[in-house]
Amino acid sequence: MKLLLTGFEPFGGETVNPSWQAVCLVPEQIGTVTVVKRCLPTSFARAGTVLTDAIAALRPDAVLCVGQAGGRAAVTPERAALNLDDARIPDNDGACPADAPIVPGGPAAYFATLPVKAMAAAIGAAGVPAAVSNTAGTFVCNHVLYLLLHTLAAQYPGVRGGFVHIPYAPEQTRAKPGQPALPVADAARALAAAIAVLDAPASGL
Amino acid sequence: MKLLLTGFEPFGGETVNPSWQAVCLVPEQIGTVTVVKRCLPTSFARAGTVLTDAIAALRPDAVLCVGQAGGRAAVTPERAALNLDDARIPDNDGACPADAPIVPGGPAAYFATLPVKAMAAAIGAAGVPAAVSNTAGTFVCNHVLYLLLHTLAAQYPGVRGGFVHIPYAPEQTRAKPGQPALPVADAARALAAAIAVLDAPASGL
Amino acid sequence: MKLLLTGFEPFGGETVNPSWQAVCLVPEQIGTVTVVKRCLPTSFARAGTVLTDAIAALRPDAVLCVGQAGGRAAVTPERAALNLDDARIPDNDGACPADAPIVPGGPAAYFATLPVKAMAAAIGAAGVPAAVSNTAGTFVCNHVLYLLLHTLAAQYPGVRGGFVHIPYAPEQTRAKPGQPALPVADAARALAAAIAVLDAPASGL
Amino acid sequence: MKLLLTGFEPFGGETVNPSWQAVCLVPEQIGTVTVVKRCLPTSFARAGTVLTDAIAALRPDAVLCVGQAGGRAAVTPERAALNLDDARIPDNDGACPADAPIVPGGPAAYFATLPVKAMAAAIGAAGVPAAVSNTAGTFVCNHVLYLLLHTLAAQYPGVRGGFVHIPYAPEQTRAKPGQPALPVADAARALAAAIAVLDAPASGL
Repeated sequence: MKLLLTGFEPFGGETVNPSWQAVCLVPEQIGTVTVVKRCLPTSFARAGTVLTDAIAALRPDAVLCVGQAGGRAAVTPERAALNLDDARIPDNDGACPADAPIVPGGPAAYFATLPVKAMAAAIGAAGVPAAVSNTAGTFVCNHVLYLLLHTLAAQYPGVRGGFVHIPYAPEQTRAKPGQPALPVADAARALAAAIAVLDAPASGL
Repeated sequence: MKLLLTGFEPFGGETVNPSWQAVCLVPEQIGTVTVVKRCLPTSFARAGTVLTDAIAALRPDAVLCVGQAGGRAAVTPERAALNLDDARIPDNDGACPADAPIVPGGPAAYFATLPVKAMAAAIGAAGVPAAVSNTAGTFVCNHVLYLLLHTLAAQYPGVRGGFVHIPYAPEQTRAKPGQPALPVADAARALAAAIAVLDAPASGL
Repeated sequence: MKLLLTGFEPFGGETVNPSWQAVCLVPEQIGTVTVVKRCLPTSFARAGTVLTDAIAALRPDAVLCVGQAGGRAAVTPERAALNLDDARIPDNDGACPADAPIVPGGPAAYFATLPVKAMAAAIGAAGVPAAVSNTAGTFVCNHVLYLLLHTLAAQYPGVRGGFVHIPYAPEQTRAKPGQPALPVADAARALAAAIAVLDAPASGL
Repeated sequence: MKLLLTGFEPFGGETVNPSWQAVCLVPEQIGTVTVVKRCLPTSFARAGTVLTDAIAALRPDAVLCVGQAGGRAAVTPERAALNLDDARIPDNDGACPADAPIVPGGPAAYFATLPVKAMAAAIGAAGVPAAVSNTAGTFVCNHVLYLLLHTLAAQYPGVRGGFVHIPYAPEQTRAKPGQPALPVADAARALAAAIAVLDAPASGL
């Protein structure tokens, strides 16, 4: 089984993005899963193309994208993506879309096809805070998850896709009193634990 | 213009539900809007029927449901509802569905058709903390919003629908240190401010 | 009974300080209490002098200082002040003291002499979120409370003193997602409720 | 240099206390520091005696107590202890003191004599979220820190003392949505990093 695992570039004035740092620490072989890693630009315009080009080139059996969710206290597999771009801050190209559909005429949402509850349970069993999330936001993370699931549904029907948000790294919260953070090595351990159960059946939906 | 405005019964061991308390404090006439109020049971099985029966009987021009979102710090118009019931605690009938579609074969989500950004701006301008929310959860609130939007789309295409979550009332957080709360009178003021702009165009979606 | 009630100027890049806004909304007569109001500079060097000059001029029976505690969800009477200045951001004079005693050789702390539990109970009974706090921080608020209690202990032994922190006003949290806020009118109502019970016996200490 | 390092028993209905779990994982030799470990009862009546008996028996050069601070997102060296017991929940003996001095006639507070800022910096440099805290609460943790500092001041003037609070372990927050947690191995790493800098000069106070 081949997994495409992606992280993101830093954005929003941060100098690191723990999603890519954590992805870099994930082993390249986890049980029978071979992990191939790519870094996506934090760009509404470019992220989707980089991702779909990688899928076309690599032909993975599953795709797991990882992003930073500043303010969250747990590692959170995402349940769904909305067909909506609505940015509070500019992306790395300076784009700041408001209330725009990602795919005009597309479904209002897609559910992730990876087993989000099994993944959250595995992350928790690895000793890392975990919860299933019901929103990937409306920034580039949600944009990428929507495009991923839209592309898989249309072109690669047997390939499963999903997204995991991770908290800030501790170095990012020094000037943000009270904000939760998770050491990047724990985030990597969480991702490895989630990857080890990607074969689980998805929840009913 | 006739608005159907709903709140919920208490649930989860609480003795009050600030959503119904706040709805009760909303004036029955706001500008040109006549407000008709109903209280919904916090029940996956019964809430939808009470709501759709009220719509059939009252034939409102718009429907706004209000619910309690314990832990939130702001009054939050909801952007969308997912086709998913997944309860962490039992509802008032003891039902605790897991990973179940609300409408089998229905769309993964519906976007609210009320103007969520104008509503949030009006609430903020009234001096009450406000934000647009991207998730109504997967409990009875989301269930009701999904059924509302599904019903309006199928049977009442000109009628607009939406949902607003409000924080705990202060009396509910006495034994919950650090949890945010909002006086119910402010929540009522927020609802009135939102209702005053229901005519605004919805955001792009 | 004459009460000196103080708020603070804006600081830290904010354009308002809800403490002074709320103080302005408090009635000038509450039961038998006559309320005299002053605004303190958010300055380690100047706040104490403005406060002690006002005490000398007004000869109040009690002094209640009010300040902004960004990030808190409740109105919080303070239990104690530490003999420590340690600023994370500059005050309005650009001063940023680190690990400095407020009164060299002074006691490590003073307990407030106002009835903090009765005040918190009265605020809660007025329908506003309330809790007793065990730390006034180490910025100008704590500095003022320490100097107040030090001055009262040394020079005005029959005069009671204390401090109440209030949350951000809603207008301050628009660009601070997830941060709690309280309408200023509620904060004013909370202060009036607390003032109405200033005569209660202090807790054991 | 000999360090007495303590954790606490579980309390408040929890089945684990991450403070003792983390203490157990700390190496017994860190640089020149020999670490001797003890578990304290979560009891107002008994914790102090167990601690002071251990000090008398072991004659350590420094004492660092560790406790659980549910709800905190970071590992937090404590700056000070107040002369106040005020429990929101019963301790493990069922005691629930309210507004009671720990040492009648004792100072209102003691400052920790370990280098809290150097410790927080070392914890952060080890990649674990860290912050100096200004309150150890008013439960058994604060009680123990106050008694420790009172005892050291009176009987062991050359011995330094302090306290570190750590977040919930992830297993404790599964039914507490949104609450931060830290893997116990990280908490242990944080403690080891703090212990490695115990020789640093204390801050000005």
